[in-house]
Amino acid sequence: MLGLMQNRPLLISTIVDYAASCHGERNIVSRDADGLIHRTTYAVVAERARRLVSILRTLNVNFGQPVATLAWNNFRHLELYYGVTGAGRILHTVNPRLFAEQIQYIINHAEDGYVFFDPAFVPLVEQLVPFLPQVRGWIALCDATDMPAVKVENLLCYEDLLAAAEADRDWPVFDENTAATLCYTSGTTGNPKGVLYSHRSTMLHAFGACATDSLAFSACDSILVIVPLFHANAWSIPFAAAMCGAKLVLPGPRLDPESIYRLLEQEGCTTAGGIPTIWLNFLAWLEPRRSSLDLSRLKLKRVLAGGTAPPRAMIEKFRDWMGVFLLHAWGMTETSPIVTVGAPLAKHDGAAPAEILDMQVRQGRQVYGIELRIVDAEGQALPHDGQSVGELKVRGNWVISGYFKAEGGRVLDDDGWFATGDVATIDPDGYVQLTDRLKDVIKSGGEWISSIEIENLIVSHPDVFEAAVIAVHHPVWQERPLLLVQPRPGSNPTKQSILDFLSTRIVKWWMPDDVVIVESLPHTATGKLLKTELRARYHGHLAVSD
Amino acid sequence: MLGLMQNRPLLISTIVDYAASCHGERNIVSRDADGLIHRTTYAVVAERARRLVSILRTLNVNFGQPVATLAWNNFRHLELYYGVTGAGRILHTVNPRLFAEQIQYIINHAEDGYVFFDPAFVPLVEQLVPFLPQVRGWIALCDATDMPAVKVENLLCYEDLLAAAEADRDWPVFDENTAATLCYTSGTTGNPKGVLYSHRSTMLHAFGACATDSLAFSACDSILVIVPLFHANAWSIPFAAAMCGAKLVLPGPRLDPESIYRLLEQEGCTTAGGIPTIWLNFLAWLEPRRSSLDLSRLKLKRVLAGGTAPPRAMIEKFRDWMGVFLLHAWGMTETSPIVTVGAPLAKHDGAAPAEILDMQVRQGRQVYGIELRIVDAEGQALPHDGQSVGELKVRGNWVISGYFKAEGGRVLDDDGWFATGDVATIDPDGYVQLTDRLKDVIKSGGEWISSIEIENLIVSHPDVFEAAVIAVHHPVWQERPLLLVQPRPGSNPTKQSILDFLSTRIVKWWMPDDVVIVESLPHTATGKLLKTELRARYHGHLAVSD
Repeated sequence: MLGLMQNRPLLISTIVDYAASCHGERNIVSRDADGLIHRTTYAVVAERARRLVSILRTLNVNFGQPVATLAWNNFRHLELYYGVTGAGRILHTVNPRLFAEQIQYIINHAEDGYVFFDPAFVPLVEQLVPFLPQVRGWIALCDATDMPAVKVENLLCYEDLLAAAEADRDWPVFDENTAATLCYTSGTTGNPKGVLYSHRSTMLHAFGACATDSLAFSACDSILVIVPLFHANAWSIPFAAAMCGAKLVLPGPRLDPESIYRLLEQEGCTTAGGIPTIWLNFLAWLEPRRSSLDLSRLKLKRVLAGGTAPPRAMIEKFRDWMGVFLLHAWGMTETSPIVTVGAPLAKHDGAAPAEILDMQVRQGRQVYGIELRIVDAEGQALPHDGQSVGELKVRGNWVISGYFKAEGGRVLDDDGWFATGDVATIDPDGYVQLTDRLKDVIKSGGEWISSIEIENLIVSHPDVFEAAVIAVHHPVWQERPLLLVQPRPGSNPTKQSILDFLSTRIVKWWMPDDVVIVESLPHTATGKLLKTELRARYHGHLAVSD
Repeated sequence: MLGLMQNRPLLISTIVDYAASCHGERNIVSRDADGLIHRTTYAVVAERARRLVSILRTLNVNFGQPVATLAWNNFRHLELYYGVTGAGRILHTVNPRLFAEQIQYIINHAEDGYVFFDPAFVPLVEQLVPFLPQVRGWIALCDATDMPAVKVENLLCYEDLLAAAEADRDWPVFDENTAATLCYTSGTTGNPKGVLYSHRSTMLHAFGACATDSLAFSACDSILVIVPLFHANAWSIPFAAAMCGAKLVLPGPRLDPESIYRLLEQEGCTTAGGIPTIWLNFLAWLEPRRSSLDLSRLKLKRVLAGGTAPPRAMIEKFRDWMGVFLLHAWGMTETSPIVTVGAPLAKHDGAAPAEILDMQVRQGRQVYGIELRIVDAEGQALPHDGQSVGELKVRGNWVISGYFKAEGGRVLDDDGWFATGDVATIDPDGYVQLTDRLKDVIKSGGEWISSIEIENLIVSHPDVFEAAVIAVHHPVWQERPLLLVQPRPGSNPTKQSILDFLSTRIVKWWMPDDVVIVESLPHTATGKLLKTELRARYHGHLAVSD
């Protein structure tokens, strides 16, 4: 027997309408490349977003077809977030920081009919145009006076299109499983793969984000959105904020610490979301200025950090300097992204500061809507005891079921779990601690050894500049850790001094089977250790040295 | 094009599983009629709830069939909340305070196969049994030693059934639109009508309840659930609490102020939900004890009040005595129930206390997921200007689409709006202020006059004990207000003194066309003014008096 309740599709347009009708005057603040502030409101953003429905129709972008954006965080990008999805078209947010070849691949793969771009990206656009035969037009996100001199066919002006368009009175209504946004994962191997979010997944994820133990947004919040709109739905902030009528502050391209500080202060930001790198820079800039700036004027209460783990010292500085709680969240493009959020439990009420910090440095607890588990090499679920180490798998309504155009083939196991590629422990309270990437973990006789933990330890040795721990083949244990060390300039550490240093800090069976002192370690273009190359080079190392 | 995200049905069992796996040790505290405390956990409740799946199967309660409860707020009732719905059966929570004839009608109408009852309700059960031929068995919510001596066929013991049952390993999976719970509205006219909630509506409503600007539950909360589990899903607290792992405190039948106070204190309750009557009694009891009780030991931060409007003085007392924020919410059985919640906006940060009180006495703002509007007599939408008065209509995924078995016929208009029967204003910030019931409002020449507002004013006249304002027929204006006044014992107000009193307080066209001094006013069994009788008696009053 079915219930007798209304059943209306979960569509993104309903949150835009909610924000416009219940929080119509709430501000959306953008700062452009020149530092100029632009103010608009949910009511105006929603009205302009509804004009996009007829613009897309006129441009012959049909229901279910994608358009791309190359844009920073600003109100026009936000209008596209709501307008393109509300129209039932797909918003493909492209990361302009990728190599031009990757962008070219992504836009061709997605078959985007139009690209909406910030004028700042003219050089990139000119580079891309010859290689994007399917793009029928380029729409500059500016008004007529700011139109860039760019040699492309069918260059259109966003503001002119809007001025000429009429706003549809009602949003189209369609199946809530319809695709809404598309975001490619950069991926360390192979081509980028697309994640195609649905309206249903986006809406349930936004509900999850608004929960008190999640991002906890409220109508009282003013949110500085540093995380880019092209990065996994900007952690759902544009949707969750509209769902509760929070003020949005969009910083544009300037993310230097002083610009961030000024926005926090001027716009009364209560919360701000960005990756730890941004916050490291911010705190470094702030440290010598703490006495001259009146930090008590800030209304900042919470900082959201994700992407990588924020260091403990960062969490302490936010707490001690500003009384700000750093909320550490974790997820992936494939998970919309919110999986875990580091919200406290009742037991943390009155707990020692160190215990609260211990909690905050972890990746957080799963929010309702996500299921997660850790499994061993045979796929058996492991206990949540804070000790057992296994691959993290997730499941839920905002987790991918497959990549766009079936790239990468099947991504779920028989029970519907998505393997994150991360290795983790889960403690009895549910807090997840990532320990390694699965490809970097050393599988020694059925047990797992974290390469990252050993690396993090040995870099505190005074003679070590950088270190890499990789798995090398072992006839008995299958894999054993090999430690590669690049000494600090001028120092000359011995193998034994390295091993002695580690021996008091890790269990015996984690001890590297050998230490190799090297002149330098190979890195990727983005500065990460190139372990694939090291593994290939040292694969037979133990056999040779024995 | 559809998105490529997982699509799992929104089932109540998923929140039970979440609570059991992520907050397994979190307490569910019940107090029985004797004041004894029983403690259990989400893990145990979930395990016992899963045993109910096989119990219902054994009892031949099939998928989609209802069972009834006659029970106070306790852990066994909570287990039925999760177990019966999780099994895909329908949980019909019956209000044991109704007249036996109403209960009999309701259980027969619902066709409940079994009734789960607290032993305290034995007298009621014995009264009901002869009239409930479809009930195949009665299950006492107790263990074997507490089994009541009650003469019914097929009397079963809940704890014996549980002890004999095995917990199903996995919950059944089914369509999220499947019926989950059933609750009858008492209704002032005609027979009670059933509202049949679905899993989808219940889950979306629970998401709505967990939002920061809504009930804002968190894992850190300990929630005293005074609102009965048989009253509109207890405002969704059992579902929302499990969704975030909040501790639940279930007070059983004893709702006297001292019992409430002890639970608040002993269980570290951070929030508590109940109707204003409960809180009026509580505060009256507390007032002379404020100095002897150490109120600082309470962890209470918020009180949820709904059902009727909490008086301003109540809100002030909670604030001044305990630093507690009274969160005023509004809804109906037909709306799951949450429609509006009185959460503050950014503008209230630092606002004058009186302004915040002005906000709190209103019914609150609509939460995302609910659409609402006020319409005039022709059904035209009125502006949200805080002045325009119209009938309140609501729409959304947790609003009824029709009553059980189509009682009452069509309940939605052509655009899907449900008419609440309430008359309200909505201010530019979205705060709703109920002004009257539609049936009591006076429709004078196309404008509406609130009977309640005039009644509330005139009872502050020193000579007035009680007053009723009703619509009487008028040849020109269709309806005009007639004021009936019952004087205070010993006083003898004149018609003119009453009118003089009002004339400085309401606009001229609201002034009653006549005042009748009466000896007494008729009331319903529950103490409400019986306006139907007054309207019948005075229908032609103006024609006669002119």
